[in-house]
Amino acid sequence: MAKVIIIGAGLAGSLLSLFLAKRGIETEVYEARGDMRRQEMSAGRSINLALSDRGIAALKQVGMDEYMLGEAVPMLGRMIHSVDGTTKLLPYSGRKGEYINSVSRGGLNIALINEADKYSESKFFFNQKCVDFDCETGEAILEGGKRTKGDTVIATDGAGSAVRQAMMNGCVSRFNYEQKFLEHGYKELHIPPKSERSAVADGLTSSSENSVKNSNFSDAKLQPPATAGGSDFAMEKNALHIWARREFLMIALPNFDGSFTCTLFLAFEGENSFESIVRTASRSDLLNNNSEISNNYLKPSATADGSDRLLEFFETNFPDAVPLMPTLVEDFFTNPTGNLGTVKCLPWNIGGKALLLGDSAHAMVPFYGQGMNCAFEDCRVLDSLIEKHGTENWKTVFEEYTLQRKPNADAICDLAEENFFEMRDAVADPVFQKKRELETLLEQTFPDYFSKYSMVTFREDLPYAVAKEKGNAQDKLLMEICANVENVGEIDLNEVLEKVKAIG
Amino acid sequence: MAKVIIIGAGLAGSLLSLFLAKRGIETEVYEARGDMRRQEMSAGRSINLALSDRGIAALKQVGMDEYMLGEAVPMLGRMIHSVDGTTKLLPYSGRKGEYINSVSRGGLNIALINEADKYSESKFFFNQKCVDFDCETGEAILEGGKRTKGDTVIATDGAGSAVRQAMMNGCVSRFNYEQKFLEHGYKELHIPPKSERSAVADGLTSSSENSVKNSNFSDAKLQPPATAGGSDFAMEKNALHIWARREFLMIALPNFDGSFTCTLFLAFEGENSFESIVRTASRSDLLNNNSEISNNYLKPSATADGSDRLLEFFETNFPDAVPLMPTLVEDFFTNPTGNLGTVKCLPWNIGGKALLLGDSAHAMVPFYGQGMNCAFEDCRVLDSLIEKHGTENWKTVFEEYTLQRKPNADAICDLAEENFFEMRDAVADPVFQKKRELETLLEQTFPDYFSKYSMVTFREDLPYAVAKEKGNAQDKLLMEICANVENVGEIDLNEVLEKVKAIG
Repeated sequence: MAKVIIIGAGLAGSLLSLFLAKRGIETEVYEARGDMRRQEMSAGRSINLALSDRGIAALKQVGMDEYMLGEAVPMLGRMIHSVDGTTKLLPYSGRKGEYINSVSRGGLNIALINEADKYSESKFFFNQKCVDFDCETGEAILEGGKRTKGDTVIATDGAGSAVRQAMMNGCVSRFNYEQKFLEHGYKELHIPPKSERSAVADGLTSSSENSVKNSNFSDAKLQPPATAGGSDFAMEKNALHIWARREFLMIALPNFDGSFTCTLFLAFEGENSFESIVRTASRSDLLNNNSEISNNYLKPSATADGSDRLLEFFETNFPDAVPLMPTLVEDFFTNPTGNLGTVKCLPWNIGGKALLLGDSAHAMVPFYGQGMNCAFEDCRVLDSLIEKHGTENWKTVFEEYTLQRKPNADAICDLAEENFFEMRDAVADPVFQKKRELETLLEQTFPDYFSKYSMVTFREDLPYAVAKEKGNAQDKLLMEICANVENVGEIDLNEVLEKVKAIG
Repeated sequence: MAKVIIIGAGLAGSLLSLFLAKRGIETEVYEARGDMRRQEMSAGRSINLALSDRGIAALKQVGMDEYMLGEAVPMLGRMIHSVDGTTKLLPYSGRKGEYINSVSRGGLNIALINEADKYSESKFFFNQKCVDFDCETGEAILEGGKRTKGDTVIATDGAGSAVRQAMMNGCVSRFNYEQKFLEHGYKELHIPPKSERSAVADGLTSSSENSVKNSNFSDAKLQPPATAGGSDFAMEKNALHIWARREFLMIALPNFDGSFTCTLFLAFEGENSFESIVRTASRSDLLNNNSEISNNYLKPSATADGSDRLLEFFETNFPDAVPLMPTLVEDFFTNPTGNLGTVKCLPWNIGGKALLLGDSAHAMVPFYGQGMNCAFEDCRVLDSLIEKHGTENWKTVFEEYTLQRKPNADAICDLAEENFFEMRDAVADPVFQKKRELETLLEQTFPDYFSKYSMVTFREDLPYAVAKEKGNAQDKLLMEICANVENVGEIDLNEVLEKVKAIG
């Protein structure tokens, strides 16, 4: 029986082990952290994620799609929050049934591990950190010196991959590598369910407990919170909320328990920045062996001064959110500040001995909500190539995989970066809002028209690289059209469709 | 007295120590290799280099320009060798006095160390390899654990810089880093002086001795070889020779002793490749801590088969060179095969504690002949900023230095890569040759017209970034013009000049 060593039991690693187990391939999955089914998740990773069609397609292949969607909160569009408190929903698509889904990272990960665990082929080893790779023997080297070997190693150990580090340090000739960072970091904040808010205000519970509660659930399907006489969500439940303020940005995704997880994206330094609020130096031990890309913390300093600056900043920029965030000060000064980086590299494989998959091969910034979806698509594509070539020649599988995936990984990494600027700047721009209106109209009118966002998010049949090329050309055209009209209603949709088709 | 630790006594480090010594700044220079004044240079680095105006301007500042030019062989243009053996000289400039200079790397390095050594401020320590940097204390860590500290550290330790590695491993938050490689490698080969060729053929001397002889000279000024009744050079002395064959390329630079050092640029793998000739696997321990970017060797395998394939390849592609290369087979299978890579990163400094300068900050491929010239310009610019800000605030100096140099380093890295394709493909292209003719005519006619090559190479007053932008726009225009004429004589030069000026 073929045997594959998987490094990391995160989302990619646990789904991959399930894919392989279903093919009768033995897997040993080595995870640096403890078993998340038995302990709280550590902070510093996003609490919820947007699951969309590419990810769903992969889950469907292993029979997990309906289960996971049952625990998801659909998000039908972007809810834009202006400084004056008014809101406006920009739908993700003009078609019914095209939406994205807010899922719990912990819940999804646990469900995948549990499902893989049902197969005797799949074995998980926790608290076993891979620190290096021996490119002569093909062994993964674990902390403490233990070595492990199978027919091959697949590294799903994230942005700070130890296997990629070994490739950089000599396993691969002429290893092409790039890491680049935005000047912005991110910090997660919390909006509790309505029913909890008064309790928090009364000092009966604290937000840090809340923020892990929903990732600490058992295998049993979560039930939506019982809310007598209406929703327990403090804002519109079925939307991704955006406070776009040009130099910075806050978003909020609904959780299944009625809370929202907010993420503030703010420059590290400068006028409006984490530094300007916290006024403490930042520490970094970034991208060390096997560490997360986002392990850079700003030291907490919830001084009276710091709190004042923070509250003033929020009152000025996110006034409608402040009343919903009773633990804002505590959250801000307790939660870590993460980095936002892109990693690209090539090759992805060491002959047939090892392959990088998911973030280890292509870490991206979160602004297209595609990091997990891309990693899941990676698993699906790899599985199809194992189907095609069998398990006798991993080098062939890995080379064909790279040929297929590299242009698409590059494309989604680029799109994710570009979308940062779109979300931060353009979403609040009237021309951009008209463009989104026009796109929605086009999608409502023409079933075979897809916006760039739709191609990336809802068209799992379309490679990212194609979505990027077509989408960017289309965006340029539509922005030009919208810059020259007062009202989207004036536009001749048939004429626009012709022009779109002419792009190719 | 201010004290600066310099890592590496290569070309950049030794020139920098001279610059600083002349300012009364104490320097300790730690060099991993032995003292090249007392031992042969190790293989794997280019034997000669093209010194041009930016490098000369820096040498002039420390009073070393005339001395070095006295040991240089002027190269007035590119001598293009066709497969049929015909040659054609494409001058580097239409103006007199604009040429580049082939200098011995070893000779230049030794001269700089000797000159710096005259100052009590400057101390050199050989066989002392820097392996790490302590970003808390600002100490450079040497092999064996010894630590050394000054007011600051300047890392001129090349493409595999240990200090840059420390920045990558956590000294710097959000360290942006990129390394990328061409699919081509390079190998140095040898054309002896005419007077030696028969001796070699007679087995009286071997080329490997010759190839280090000229880098092993004393402080005394080298005398050109005595050649009774004419030049001892086997080809035109005052040219950079190019055999451009599209998929690959050979060049040759004259040495002061009458020999030429050839460099073959060839793909590692594929139809015409090092692999196809050598048929052995390549080993790599590339870009490890402090190693050179070019330390990837193809294992020697001078089998009868290998020699046959090699000679057939050379006879087919470089027939006119073969008779001049009596030790071709030995050289090919003995000399290492180097990688060709670009390294970019940002930031270049760790506050005021350390700065990357030269290849450690921006390694480039050799195709514009600007690696050393750029590093020397780095030294000159840094010196001018020390002049401006003094030695009390290194952070300010380093930040202003980065602001000035980063766009220019990026530009020359890009230009060097682009020039690979120009040298390999375009130099043999009739339209390109017409373009060079037109550029020469323009330079002869209009004293204030400068081609892209001239702006990069002869205009030390023009930042690389400006030369790149203007030069690329100009190149595009001239190529279009030349694509549409039979003969350069038909072109109205005044009209072209107007168009060039319109570019800006």
